[in-house]
Amino acid sequence: MNMHPPSLPAVGVVGATGYTGLEVLRLLRRHAGVQVRFATSEGSAGEASALPGLSLVSSATVSLEGIELVFLCLPHGKALEWAERAHAADVRVVDLTADHRPGSGRQEGWVYGMVDLAPERIAGARRVANPGCYPTGVQVAIHPLRTRGMISDGAPVVINAASGVTGAGRTPKRELLFAEVASDYRAYALGNAHRHLLEMREGLPGLPLVFQPHLLPLARGILETMYLPMRDAVDAASVRAVWREVFEDSATVSVTDGSPTLAEVARTDRLVLGAADNAGIPGLVTVIASFDNLGKGAAGQAVQNMNLMLGLDPVLGLRC
Amino acid sequence: MNMHPPSLPAVGVVGATGYTGLEVLRLLRRHAGVQVRFATSEGSAGEASALPGLSLVSSATVSLEGIELVFLCLPHGKALEWAERAHAADVRVVDLTADHRPGSGRQEGWVYGMVDLAPERIAGARRVANPGCYPTGVQVAIHPLRTRGMISDGAPVVINAASGVTGAGRTPKRELLFAEVASDYRAYALGNAHRHLLEMREGLPGLPLVFQPHLLPLARGILETMYLPMRDAVDAASVRAVWREVFEDSATVSVTDGSPTLAEVARTDRLVLGAADNAGIPGLVTVIASFDNLGKGAAGQAVQNMNLMLGLDPVLGLRC
Amino acid sequence: MNMHPPSLPAVGVVGATGYTGLEVLRLLRRHAGVQVRFATSEGSAGEASALPGLSLVSSATVSLEGIELVFLCLPHGKALEWAERAHAADVRVVDLTADHRPGSGRQEGWVYGMVDLAPERIAGARRVANPGCYPTGVQVAIHPLRTRGMISDGAPVVINAASGVTGAGRTPKRELLFAEVASDYRAYALGNAHRHLLEMREGLPGLPLVFQPHLLPLARGILETMYLPMRDAVDAASVRAVWREVFEDSATVSVTDGSPTLAEVARTDRLVLGAADNAGIPGLVTVIASFDNLGKGAAGQAVQNMNLMLGLDPVLGLRC
Amino acid sequence: MNMHPPSLPAVGVVGATGYTGLEVLRLLRRHAGVQVRFATSEGSAGEASALPGLSLVSSATVSLEGIELVFLCLPHGKALEWAERAHAADVRVVDLTADHRPGSGRQEGWVYGMVDLAPERIAGARRVANPGCYPTGVQVAIHPLRTRGMISDGAPVVINAASGVTGAGRTPKRELLFAEVASDYRAYALGNAHRHLLEMREGLPGLPLVFQPHLLPLARGILETMYLPMRDAVDAASVRAVWREVFEDSATVSVTDGSPTLAEVARTDRLVLGAADNAGIPGLVTVIASFDNLGKGAAGQAVQNMNLMLGLDPVLGLRC
Repeated sequence: MNMHPPSLPAVGVVGATGYTGLEVLRLLRRHAGVQVRFATSEGSAGEASALPGLSLVSSATVSLEGIELVFLCLPHGKALEWAERAHAADVRVVDLTADHRPGSGRQEGWVYGMVDLAPERIAGARRVANPGCYPTGVQVAIHPLRTRGMISDGAPVVINAASGVTGAGRTPKRELLFAEVASDYRAYALGNAHRHLLEMREGLPGLPLVFQPHLLPLARGILETMYLPMRDAVDAASVRAVWREVFEDSATVSVTDGSPTLAEVARTDRLVLGAADNAGIPGLVTVIASFDNLGKGAAGQAVQNMNLMLGLDPVLGLRC
Repeated sequence: MNMHPPSLPAVGVVGATGYTGLEVLRLLRRHAGVQVRFATSEGSAGEASALPGLSLVSSATVSLEGIELVFLCLPHGKALEWAERAHAADVRVVDLTADHRPGSGRQEGWVYGMVDLAPERIAGARRVANPGCYPTGVQVAIHPLRTRGMISDGAPVVINAASGVTGAGRTPKRELLFAEVASDYRAYALGNAHRHLLEMREGLPGLPLVFQPHLLPLARGILETMYLPMRDAVDAASVRAVWREVFEDSATVSVTDGSPTLAEVARTDRLVLGAADNAGIPGLVTVIASFDNLGKGAAGQAVQNMNLMLGLDPVLGLRC
Repeated sequence: MNMHPPSLPAVGVVGATGYTGLEVLRLLRRHAGVQVRFATSEGSAGEASALPGLSLVSSATVSLEGIELVFLCLPHGKALEWAERAHAADVRVVDLTADHRPGSGRQEGWVYGMVDLAPERIAGARRVANPGCYPTGVQVAIHPLRTRGMISDGAPVVINAASGVTGAGRTPKRELLFAEVASDYRAYALGNAHRHLLEMREGLPGLPLVFQPHLLPLARGILETMYLPMRDAVDAASVRAVWREVFEDSATVSVTDGSPTLAEVARTDRLVLGAADNAGIPGLVTVIASFDNLGKGAAGQAVQNMNLMLGLDPVLGLRC
Repeated sequence: MNMHPPSLPAVGVVGATGYTGLEVLRLLRRHAGVQVRFATSEGSAGEASALPGLSLVSSATVSLEGIELVFLCLPHGKALEWAERAHAADVRVVDLTADHRPGSGRQEGWVYGMVDLAPERIAGARRVANPGCYPTGVQVAIHPLRTRGMISDGAPVVINAASGVTGAGRTPKRELLFAEVASDYRAYALGNAHRHLLEMREGLPGLPLVFQPHLLPLARGILETMYLPMRDAVDAASVRAVWREVFEDSATVSVTDGSPTLAEVARTDRLVLGAADNAGIPGLVTVIASFDNLGKGAAGQAVQNMNLMLGLDPVLGLRC
């Protein structure tokens, strides 16, 4: 109910009516380590926010006095001004837009907040670029294998991804109407043209990635099916063994011997990994990552970044 | 494929990119008795229409020379100008908007196109106001009972209706986005406030109607559950008997002894009626009508009206 | 993670693979006041339960030594034996089946667990019959109005209800398959024939109820739209005023001036009430209750009953 | 309405209550070239079939006297007996099961009914094995490219497929219940283990196929995204050019410059092909096929086979 004692660190949410902003508020509502001081919306200022008792305000009226951290949940390309403002006021930032991610050309001074791969760099950071949804699953799955030299050089890595529609935002568009989406499924950004590719390529340098996203008739969830050409005798069992070692202490990443599903991760901040050999096709291992695009793929990882930045329990407030 | 010989009557569709316009084109595509000469869209002129081989054009470029009938599939309130234009050119009109329906104050010179209740008046008509979706089910179910004096005077008639979202149109709005609708169900127009009430009241004068619509997480379909206070010994069996007599020759209205479903009418131009007594509550009969809001509730009835106006087989081209 | 100290009260879940059993486990997993000692399944003994670290066991192998309370999440008609067994071992019971509810003929010795209406009777109880889903919304909405004499005598009270499919259980049946439900909506138990009517009638004696349920293409949620004939000058505002007084201290029941939705209660243990007058129909107030059939309508209320029986904070572990 | 003159060829449907049997009846209902003489069901004999006026009968009571052709819509492995019976009675057969497809080991005497690739062999056939749903899209897309030597040797061809749940049949199973499927998406048959692989491999000999199917939260539709390693300068444009030449006269296969969708093929007997180059990955072309698993993927192709076998217009009765 947000009745935290005033001594808890104060945070703010900038852009609190889009799907990621709403999800950040949903997590912070039950978070025992911070208090939410403000939530902004230019179009709905004065209305109730998703947090009981807190009204939406316009950015212009916000004071950063006493604020420890702000979440930027704005449309891509719109975070620059607020990032500057927070920086000038010496306030920590978790930027959920693409504006300071790898590939943006604006990473200087920012730490990439891929919490499961480099938590130690985030602990002391004051400005964190929260990873994109698709790149989160791809890098969590592939990065540990890549750094161990398990993946073949040269052959393309095919990533066939599918996402629920909240990934496309909450701005009304005809193609996102219920009656358009409800009985459909289709590929989009054909031709290796998705803007998340840049982010993935910087995170996995040298790997020839083919990334093909599809739109699911679901509100939430991402499932990425990746086809990895492996070195020598690397098989699914050795892939799982590496993951289990790397993510042994992670409360949000788990490994299954079966097939990861969207049902098991919906409305959580978890990510589930699976792997399988392919009968008759030696050397090709299929790898699957499932997670909620608004949870682990956005707000969950953002709150995890906040926890690390503020020195709190890393999974405080998360749905593990 | 619309390769009809030029001797077939020519028709046009005004407003061919909304859900009703698309559905009219879908029906006309397979209609053996007319040819579609034009389909308009102000916003998408030049693009392909839903009819293979026919491009969308703007209204201003349309010629009515040789056109026998136009369908007006515009937003409510926008049909007046086109109705005038067609009238001036002596072209028949089926108006799918609410602009000339009972309750609009503009009925003069127009015939109300409730095909199952008064087909003989439509046969000679040149201007037909196509009924609203909700009023179609309500009147088809209740009108025959009302005119036979089977319904009690005085007690309210409760109509609990549920509709798929295409009934709300194709203009992008936040509340119609997939992620907003997909896990929801709610009442709207609370307080007997739906604009279709006027139309129903004129069709069923003197009946105290309570009409409460709800929004279903479905693209298509309307199911109306009506609670009728009956005179004396009128029960569900006598209700069904009256319907079966009235709709004996109808290819689009049928009566079931069971529970009408949306599944059986989806993507058809049919309407199914059912009735049940209520144990322990003598005198109250529950009546249910199911149909597709875009089929029988809009385009299906519109094409049926066209068939009658042009002297064709009444159900030509319909999905019965 | 169920790593509670052994001093917490121990509970068991009988029937842990159906939808209500799964939901009880989901709530207990995060409950800080009890520890789950066992979860039974006759068909899946030995497999993992929904609670990490706890395997399913068959009833025959369960010991009740040291158990404070058991939840019976069995099919209706199957709870009698376990109720006897728990009684003999002096273990508290929350029975989620219909077997000991009003109307069952087996209420003797059992308290009806409608937590929002008579919490004081539950506090000391050892055997509680958890209310049915549909009766919960109907009674929470109507009981306070009825006891204040606000509802007219004689005229039928129409309750038009709609539920997601988990209410029908998890046993495979053709009519519950995805492809059968996904584009459908229909009334069932036509003719005032639903077995929950008995329970409602005992809770609201003397009111002539007409209860018509419908099946929604949703997994979860119940929305009940009730049409209440009111005495004299009773209107929607006075209805809301009474509710606000009665449920002032409730953390699970809230009142809205708008239209209650399924979206706002999905996966919570809350219940939202709304009311509206009907233009042109004086004396008829429309009342709406929305809640999650598995939350407030089953497991949420069951855990709330447990909290009261064990002297814990009434809403501990609930999703308010 | 099935009131065809007795001179039309008579056909029968064996297994008329599963999803494919229902769809065959749906198509035959509007087919102007044949009459349906019987529809069988062992479990529902005596009840109404999906064809108005025709009751279901048990196989034992069926006479094949005067029957020209039977459709076998049985579970896989159950068609052998009926195939023998029809053969003995000199009745043509379209077998929609996998029992006589490539890879079954029982192809002798049967023609593989891939209508778009070898229609001339089907014209004179008396026993046709109707292709599987997944193999239809894969072979229609790849076979013309393969036979023209456009695909590289050696490198794996990854086929990432997604299907609606009707592909899994109508027998009640827990994992097919609405509440299990509605918010899920997952891969199944992990490890190149789907039984359709044998059929694809015989149709595309020598190609190293990796086939990974996924289950969509939809009733109908298959979308296959294929990643093809190409020879030399073969690009998406040349792929589309070949398809357009091969399928120039086809009324059911079309080629788009955009992204094929499930929405455009749902409830039709069409198949849409698309292709795209991948930026930065020369030599890898992404190919997509979309179609309705019950339409082109089963009943649509079966009726097309029937049309060819009986010398009728190949697309008579199809939804093109």
